[in-house]
Amino acid sequence: MNVKLGIIGFGGMGKWHEQNATRVKGVEIVAVCEIDDTKRQEAIDLGYPAYKDVEDLLANPEVNTVLITVPNHLHKEMVIKAANAGKHIIDEKPAALNTAEYDEMVKAVENNNVTMMVHQNRRWDRDFRIAKKVYEEHMIGDIFTIESKLHTANGRIHEWHLYKKYGGGMLYDWGVHLIDQACQMMKGAKVLSVFADLKSIINYEVDDYFKILLKFDNGITYHIELGTYVLNYQPRWLVAGNRGTLKINTFACDGEIWRTSELLDKLPAQIAETVAGPTRQFAPQPAGALYSEELPTVETDWTDFYQNFVNVVNGKEEQLVKHEEVRRVLAIMEAAWKSSETNQAILFEK
Amino acid sequence: MNVKLGIIGFGGMGKWHEQNATRVKGVEIVAVCEIDDTKRQEAIDLGYPAYKDVEDLLANPEVNTVLITVPNHLHKEMVIKAANAGKHIIDEKPAALNTAEYDEMVKAVENNNVTMMVHQNRRWDRDFRIAKKVYEEHMIGDIFTIESKLHTANGRIHEWHLYKKYGGGMLYDWGVHLIDQACQMMKGAKVLSVFADLKSIINYEVDDYFKILLKFDNGITYHIELGTYVLNYQPRWLVAGNRGTLKINTFACDGEIWRTSELLDKLPAQIAETVAGPTRQFAPQPAGALYSEELPTVETDWTDFYQNFVNVVNGKEEQLVKHEEVRRVLAIMEAAWKSSETNQAILFEK
Repeated sequence: MNVKLGIIGFGGMGKWHEQNATRVKGVEIVAVCEIDDTKRQEAIDLGYPAYKDVEDLLANPEVNTVLITVPNHLHKEMVIKAANAGKHIIDEKPAALNTAEYDEMVKAVENNNVTMMVHQNRRWDRDFRIAKKVYEEHMIGDIFTIESKLHTANGRIHEWHLYKKYGGGMLYDWGVHLIDQACQMMKGAKVLSVFADLKSIINYEVDDYFKILLKFDNGITYHIELGTYVLNYQPRWLVAGNRGTLKINTFACDGEIWRTSELLDKLPAQIAETVAGPTRQFAPQPAGALYSEELPTVETDWTDFYQNFVNVVNGKEEQLVKHEEVRRVLAIMEAAWKSSETNQAILFEK
Repeated sequence: MNVKLGIIGFGGMGKWHEQNATRVKGVEIVAVCEIDDTKRQEAIDLGYPAYKDVEDLLANPEVNTVLITVPNHLHKEMVIKAANAGKHIIDEKPAALNTAEYDEMVKAVENNNVTMMVHQNRRWDRDFRIAKKVYEEHMIGDIFTIESKLHTANGRIHEWHLYKKYGGGMLYDWGVHLIDQACQMMKGAKVLSVFADLKSIINYEVDDYFKILLKFDNGITYHIELGTYVLNYQPRWLVAGNRGTLKINTFACDGEIWRTSELLDKLPAQIAETVAGPTRQFAPQPAGALYSEELPTVETDWTDFYQNFVNVVNGKEEQLVKHEEVRRVLAIMEAAWKSSETNQAILFEK
């Protein structure tokens, strides 16, 4: 059976899916729903039947799957309607505003025996896959810290992402990816506690800066950070182990693995007044003590998301983005908000 | 009155003080105490009367001030003995192993009406003073995050710093400076909570990696971090505000202030598949959107520590390193250990 998509919401991500989903064999786009007249006309111009009302799209028997890209506060309503209409569902992230909403959605999906999968597409990002490979293959020994950061100078948040009532802000928009990546990389490990700091820096209502520390029971502290107004971008990834340090600068995957040729066996007897003040431990390194290696290569293709969805609805594979995974990320987000408000760490999974 | 120093402990820092303290007029070195025969001989060779037993140094009437550079676990005993002998005291950092020890020390100092000042010399570090100036003069607007980091590849901890019983580890050795700097920079602000992660990575007994987050009631989250085995050094300072970002790379004070010429007014309508995946907010910046300015200049001289001490014992100035400041830093360190053990944030000053 082909996946015959009705796209609900023809804004930025709706159009992106329109261009990309059909790269996978077995996916067709058969209809669009969009309340905005101009955007709906764009869908019509592309040759799609386009509805203003979601009920009309759901009444189209050709549509067997809906792809939901409407603002975040509408995900629950749309998912439940689609499930009750017997449609399969691809839901943009964040799946829902909170775990309570998500539980209702999963219930509707299960009651109607349809498939729902959340578009956690950044599990396929190359930078993430490199970091994950370095971790899984123990390439820098036992890892003690993972820093996953995203800085930009774009500053302002745009469109509905600016407003709380629509589920705006950067934790919903990007945090959900960064936390999902953490949980995927640390698979099988429990999150002992969540400590977070969320702020609104140059936007008024919603978070545009956050730092979240997840202490996992495997001994790794995983630091997630995003700022829309941090003007000197720190590395996308900094991962340190007892046999080396991985750095990936940007999404373009420029970076390297750093190693030491030898460790100082004995400090110089005399503390010198260096540029670093009186120190031996933090004096500049002798030349050649540090060297770098190329990053490992990885194979990854984000169209695997769609391919998996096609296989799931045809009963050939388990879905890669599981409900319990999505729910756990939302629960971590709830803990992060609570932590930031109370200045406390939130004990999570014991 | 001249400060006539008896140096107790003629290891690395003892020798450093021997070379540097007399740069200030009014400071003389008149005796040394050292239990190790080889090191004591070095003091004798430099022309100092040198004792094996601290009682003998304290009995020398020419010594009016002791300078304590022995391992950390001996600070309390030495300070109390010196105070009871009526000597003024310069105590190396960390002042004591904990607040309970420090309280006893302060009591002995007050009972004997002598001066004790802890050598928090890194209040005079140029990199710190630049960051402090940027904060105090509001040069990058309202600051929301301050990151103060120290990475090295030297890895191994040396000498007595390797052992718990001597007060080893990097929180005692360097954390005490980094936290003291935070408290000095954020003067007047309360620490709402302390969240910390301390680890032993390539050393066995003591911490050689830590990340400590201090949430201040002025809205700033101050992140302190040290690693002896982080092989790609992150900037010594990253400070971000709503009008710019300060970066100082190393103790050598190479770095700049980053600013934006203009913010994106509207995102492009179409989400493109960039190297960053489907994103607009985190797409690469247009050329010229970011520019940098030189760091401000500061005047600083670490011999001011000794000068202040001379003035204090002559009744001309208040001491710059105050007992309540030293005690507060020790209390934050205690909270950091507790946080790391319990995975909780420790509520501190409400």
